[in-house]
Amino acid sequence: MARRATSGDGGRRPTTIRDVAAHAGVSVATVSRILSGTYPSAPATRGKVMKAVRELDYVANANARGLAGASSRSVAIVVNSVVSPHYAHVAQGVQTQAALEGKLCIVGTTGGDPERELATVQLMRQEHAECVILVGNVVNDDAYRARMADYARALSAAGSQLVLCGRPALGPDVPALVIEYDNIGGAHAVTSHLLSAGHRRILFLGRHDGYTTPEARIAGYRNALSDFGVPHDPALELHGRMERAEGYRMIRGRLADGPPDFSAIFAGNDLLAAGARQALREHGLRIPDDISMVGFDDLPTAADIDLTTVHVPHEELGRTAVRLALRHGQDRSALTEQHVLLGTHIVVRDSVRPIRPH
Amino acid sequence: MARRATSGDGGRRPTTIRDVAAHAGVSVATVSRILSGTYPSAPATRGKVMKAVRELDYVANANARGLAGASSRSVAIVVNSVVSPHYAHVAQGVQTQAALEGKLCIVGTTGGDPERELATVQLMRQEHAECVILVGNVVNDDAYRARMADYARALSAAGSQLVLCGRPALGPDVPALVIEYDNIGGAHAVTSHLLSAGHRRILFLGRHDGYTTPEARIAGYRNALSDFGVPHDPALELHGRMERAEGYRMIRGRLADGPPDFSAIFAGNDLLAAGARQALREHGLRIPDDISMVGFDDLPTAADIDLTTVHVPHEELGRTAVRLALRHGQDRSALTEQHVLLGTHIVVRDSVRPIRPH
Repeated sequence: MARRATSGDGGRRPTTIRDVAAHAGVSVATVSRILSGTYPSAPATRGKVMKAVRELDYVANANARGLAGASSRSVAIVVNSVVSPHYAHVAQGVQTQAALEGKLCIVGTTGGDPERELATVQLMRQEHAECVILVGNVVNDDAYRARMADYARALSAAGSQLVLCGRPALGPDVPALVIEYDNIGGAHAVTSHLLSAGHRRILFLGRHDGYTTPEARIAGYRNALSDFGVPHDPALELHGRMERAEGYRMIRGRLADGPPDFSAIFAGNDLLAAGARQALREHGLRIPDDISMVGFDDLPTAADIDLTTVHVPHEELGRTAVRLALRHGQDRSALTEQHVLLGTHIVVRDSVRPIRPH
Repeated sequence: MARRATSGDGGRRPTTIRDVAAHAGVSVATVSRILSGTYPSAPATRGKVMKAVRELDYVANANARGLAGASSRSVAIVVNSVVSPHYAHVAQGVQTQAALEGKLCIVGTTGGDPERELATVQLMRQEHAECVILVGNVVNDDAYRARMADYARALSAAGSQLVLCGRPALGPDVPALVIEYDNIGGAHAVTSHLLSAGHRRILFLGRHDGYTTPEARIAGYRNALSDFGVPHDPALELHGRMERAEGYRMIRGRLADGPPDFSAIFAGNDLLAAGARQALREHGLRIPDDISMVGFDDLPTAADIDLTTVHVPHEELGRTAVRLALRHGQDRSALTEQHVLLGTHIVVRDSVRPIRPH
């Protein structure tokens, strides 16, 4: 498939790591160490090796890649979008761990379109990615589960491994690894934080029925209300996607209907909180003086707006996904489902003020 | 290479789009439209087609991919990191345009390591990416230019195309497309904005000699000072990388030395501004009441902290890169260098207050 320059034998033999070592005047072990990127090396040595790699147009593991099921050099992650900092931070964890393991990392983006997802997973499989990590919020319906089961079996048959990250498990007969984080626990904790400060009318931003992530977060919110004996008022749950502009839209709409009938806001993620904060400010309402607010995710925007939020271990999710998939790949007989749940915790900043209980 | 299930002829023939259409009971044109993702389609039709694609394990363009130099289905972008919103927004533009053109988008991450960059570009070339887009800030030295020229020629020989995005041109004999944006003009305009408001002692955050992006931004800053007849004071230029934590570090260090000897700050990008703002607040200094500040990039964090900044057309950079590369690919005889410069402009928010001239 790949065009490869010849190494000096008339083009009948692909360049090997030995050719590179000989050309650079160093040992094979040195070339291997430098190409894996996991050990320090002297700049001069590195320079010689990279020059030889370029001049011989060496493609590392080119031989191994031609063998069915042989180990590859890349791990793949598939996300809706790289602009969403949630996805970006998980992808960063994947990239970091891939680098530690001496692998490349490739990211496929789908724009949330199942057909692009299918085509992307097929491409990753063709390229012998060692694992394919799918991230984030989904509609957990039959069509989704059927699609994932197909991916899992096709990847497994090709010697690769499906990993679901921040998504629910598929079932014991599907060869997929699952790395989740505790959405319900985090949402329960941060809602309890507001309730403990005396808040009873807590607006929830970002209800999105059918989608796994907002459903888990609103479940934690409702459980906490119930634990504190606060009646559940569906009119306090505002529907929308988990984007900044949606938070702005929801609060703007709510305040257009009259003065706030809530003392606190639980934004389904930090981006919603940032948008909501802007709409509050345009109405002359300040956080936390007038309205308390909490978010979810602990992305950089939360630090910028001094938001108390739930820390999601995004990078750890990505690192764990790669680590487990590569360990798993070493034991092909153990293709039973594996399921990891990472914890979440509150990060307290300056966005909540206690009030007297009503 | 790729494992492909058989279509019903005993496995001697790969599945074609006609097989998918027959299996789904629709026309070839319908399958093509649905797989390209560029036209609306009825959910029922889409469902039938996707079911056929899964059952036949159809890999679109699998035949074409086998032919040397034939058109592929993917465009590739290589970035240091997907966590940096600058890179993420360019990658988003690439993904958007790729989807419009019916292509997949794959993103390679390098962590800034030239060896990983080399391995990633090789992988992209092996996979017949139609173009390989490299983004962002670099040390524009001989080693860099030699590496890029190697990439450009290797990709061109493989029927692909190197695109440099937000990087300087390589020279007329190197077959690379270059899409830049106006760093110097933007920095000049936003510095002039501070100067027009009466500021004379303007701290510059993020000087990083040798790196193309900060060098261009500081050049615009110095030019504007010169145009306003303000003497250049090198003590006002603080060195550091363009990251949030660095902005915090620089301002913390500066204020530890004594009260501010500046009335305004030009942060080399919005992340530096966010970090600087945090350090200012810890010293009880408010923006814009005590210190004026401007940034660069117009990333979401700028809206969160109400920062006047320079808008960089990140997504347009990505879209233009794909558009030009794919058009270019249609005329292989025109492999001369092509160079596009996109404009930048100020976005005024609430972070600058006029002062009396000194």
